[in-house]
Amino acid sequence: MASPAAAAAAEENLPQVLILLNPPAFTIFGEEYFTSSKFRFLKSYESSLPLDEFLSANGRPMRALLATAATIVGAGVLELLPDLRLIVTTSAGLDQLDLAECRRRGIRIASAGDIYSADVADCAVGLLIDVLRKISASNRYVKNGFWASKGDYPLGSKLRGKRIGIVGLGRIGLQVAKRLQQGFGCTVSYNSRKKKNPDQVPYPFYQDVQELAANSDALILCCGLTEQTRHVVDKEVLAALGKAGVIVNVARGAVVDEKEMVRCLVEGEIAGAGLDVFEDEPVVPKELLELDNVVLSPHSAVLTRESMMELARLVVGNLEAFFSNEPLLSEYEDD
Amino acid sequence: MASPAAAAAAEENLPQVLILLNPPAFTIFGEEYFTSSKFRFLKSYESSLPLDEFLSANGRPMRALLATAATIVGAGVLELLPDLRLIVTTSAGLDQLDLAECRRRGIRIASAGDIYSADVADCAVGLLIDVLRKISASNRYVKNGFWASKGDYPLGSKLRGKRIGIVGLGRIGLQVAKRLQQGFGCTVSYNSRKKKNPDQVPYPFYQDVQELAANSDALILCCGLTEQTRHVVDKEVLAALGKAGVIVNVARGAVVDEKEMVRCLVEGEIAGAGLDVFEDEPVVPKELLELDNVVLSPHSAVLTRESMMELARLVVGNLEAFFSNEPLLSEYEDD
Repeated sequence: MASPAAAAAAEENLPQVLILLNPPAFTIFGEEYFTSSKFRFLKSYESSLPLDEFLSANGRPMRALLATAATIVGAGVLELLPDLRLIVTTSAGLDQLDLAECRRRGIRIASAGDIYSADVADCAVGLLIDVLRKISASNRYVKNGFWASKGDYPLGSKLRGKRIGIVGLGRIGLQVAKRLQQGFGCTVSYNSRKKKNPDQVPYPFYQDVQELAANSDALILCCGLTEQTRHVVDKEVLAALGKAGVIVNVARGAVVDEKEMVRCLVEGEIAGAGLDVFEDEPVVPKELLELDNVVLSPHSAVLTRESMMELARLVVGNLEAFFSNEPLLSEYEDD
Repeated sequence: MASPAAAAAAEENLPQVLILLNPPAFTIFGEEYFTSSKFRFLKSYESSLPLDEFLSANGRPMRALLATAATIVGAGVLELLPDLRLIVTTSAGLDQLDLAECRRRGIRIASAGDIYSADVADCAVGLLIDVLRKISASNRYVKNGFWASKGDYPLGSKLRGKRIGIVGLGRIGLQVAKRLQQGFGCTVSYNSRKKKNPDQVPYPFYQDVQELAANSDALILCCGLTEQTRHVVDKEVLAALGKAGVIVNVARGAVVDEKEMVRCLVEGEIAGAGLDVFEDEPVVPKELLELDNVVLSPHSAVLTRESMMELARLVVGNLEAFFSNEPLLSEYEDD
């Protein structure tokens, strides 16, 4: 067995993986799941140096970077990492990375791929059922002892037959559609950047979100946040959705004009909302805390033990494969 | 237009429909939805007379009875209703009726049929997602303002791939199975009085509930309450389900040994529960009120505005059809 000194020396010689921001998965799930005998982490966020100074001092030999959804990697950062050849990110999306610059520099990318989609879709459906059937609210009612003292809780609303409008029919939106149409007998329509091939995606397409809202009982937001989708659910869309309408948001808070949505919920201009995301997380508009027709979830749609375990397997697997010159497990193919 | 006196006289002449217990749907939804210009109700529960005296005095001419799940109609009651030819019940089940005696007396029966099944199945799936993904608990956490002050909520558990054991694969159980296997990518097995035709029902059958529990991550109880199913989920079944296992009950409280289940939940011998029904409703064991891994619903799995509307349409339609000698809308066929 190696002596502690020998082990430390061996560890010294391991290739390093740079991390710029503390990955939430380390805190939520445990850093130990992401460690390996084949590499070690170099954490710029544990240094007291500003990032550019840290990278000027330490960046040159770095060949691999572990990024998160919040790790913005632009040309400036890449300039300080001339030998970088791999970015592994814990996110499904890649908006935080300058993909053109990565391509120019020959940097390969491995993302979390599809591992979160099922969980996010499950959460969206769970929030929808919860709002329509008043599960959280009646749970609170029972737990406060009101069932015996005050009698029945107000009636919920049926899911079957509801017209569901999905904004953003990517991996997550498609899984939401499948659950609700095949599983629950809802009818699904969608809005997306462009219309999908109707042979593969049979749901009616609406170019205009307001028109989609006018023809939906519930809008489920599953799109990425871009300049085009920022506040795509605005005052007019909320008015089109109407008094019986429900919003479910598992995308990003800023996809909705939150202030306007809060006003609509308070004034009864829409019926309810199930929200996993907010414009200014973890701050939630205080009006929402009081409303029984609103179900709030702390941006946890992707967070299950199983998805974290899968993420750890994928992150470690990609990094080990890279350092062993083997094929990556989930390489992003630029097209 | 008829004078008030003439209208009262006309109403006097309408055929009567006897009601023995106040239907919950009258209170929850509104009696006005169940009224008709073709019949009027005679409510024994509004009389101060004991039931047998009331029926002795008023029962003889009654041809139709509106029953609820709680209206026990045995040979003794039927004896006092010699002209009864129709029972319309607001329940899907008919356990409360002496079917053999009804048949002997030529009494036809119209039930609520399948109108509740989709809602109950939706509620079962909603409770399962809620327990696994901690929706109600994290909603409470956010609403209490803890997200910003205490950080992330503990990880939930993934639905996809879970092994679901359904106890009672009738109309409701089949709809639960469809949602979870087709919609969410779970695997379904079941226990039922007898094995279904495998050409129609492809899920593996377990004769023994304990064995089903040992091979399931969640047990969903969808069976009727009979002498065979009373406490079918007992200490041994709960032990077989185990520390990671979840119970969802949308059947009847007494299908589970509630005291034993509460002990298992408190002591962490099972992981959680989503419960719409209890042994002594509306009283809920007080230990359950404190537990974050338990979601409680006030026996509202069948209660949606839409199902109540459908029920009213069916009750009124069956009664009007009967008095007009037309075919009933949902006649129970004894086989």
